[in-house]
Amino acid sequence: MISPVDLLAALDTITEHWSPRVVGRVNDQYVKVAKVLGELVWHKHDDEDELFLVLRGRLRIQFGGGREIVLQEGQFCVVPRGTMHNPIADEECSIALIETVTTQHTGDVKISRTRSIAEQLGR
Amino acid sequence: MISPVDLLAALDTITEHWSPRVVGRVNDQYVKVAKVLGELVWHKHDDEDELFLVLRGRLRIQFGGGREIVLQEGQFCVVPRGTMHNPIADEECSIALIETVTTQHTGDVKISRTRSIAEQLGR
Repeated sequence: MISPVDLLAALDTITEHWSPRVVGRVNDQYVKVAKVLGELVWHKHDDEDELFLVLRGRLRIQFGGGREIVLQEGQFCVVPRGTMHNPIADEECSIALIETVTTQHTGDVKISRTRSIAEQLGR
Repeated sequence: MISPVDLLAALDTITEHWSPRVVGRVNDQYVKVAKVLGELVWHKHDDEDELFLVLRGRLRIQFGGGREIVLQEGQFCVVPRGTMHNPIADEECSIALIETVTTQHTGDVKISRTRSIAEQLGR
């Protein structure tokens, strides 16, 4: 059965920051939503690009060499595979993510906030 | 260089209905935006799922057997590979699409509105 998924309604069920929830799959990519606040952690994904789309609020993403971009509501960017990055939300921010189904949450590092794919699927 | 892409600003540059514009790529998927009005055409993509996200307005998607779903602003659905579908916008509607880079616009049928990947890339 094909049914509509409401991005903001899916976000309303999330209570924990930096804990993405899988809300759809298109080909080999998951669509996830997350509420974020503060800093995640510097990490990279060696083999997978990662798309960040801001649904509510504002997200900063730091890159190496002191570079940083700011994503406002309705803006997205793609972090290419192999790129060190550190997402930061100065105030609570709601995002959608598109990532290969195998992508690990915090890439090549593991912290207490790291979530497994099973957790992101709500299993 | 990684830079933000503004979905609504990208849409503002589009003047033709049913003519998707590639605005990003994540892994083997293109992110596209399109303005749509009226009916496209019944078609399917044998090997590729297709994600429709409504950014402004309202989109109906018809399926076989008289089934239909309605996507409101902020809602998406994934049309699984091999599924006959026909998108219809009763009033102008702005959408984002996520599709494999090889996905053909109108799948297994060709009509005057069919756009090539090169056209969608603005080449």
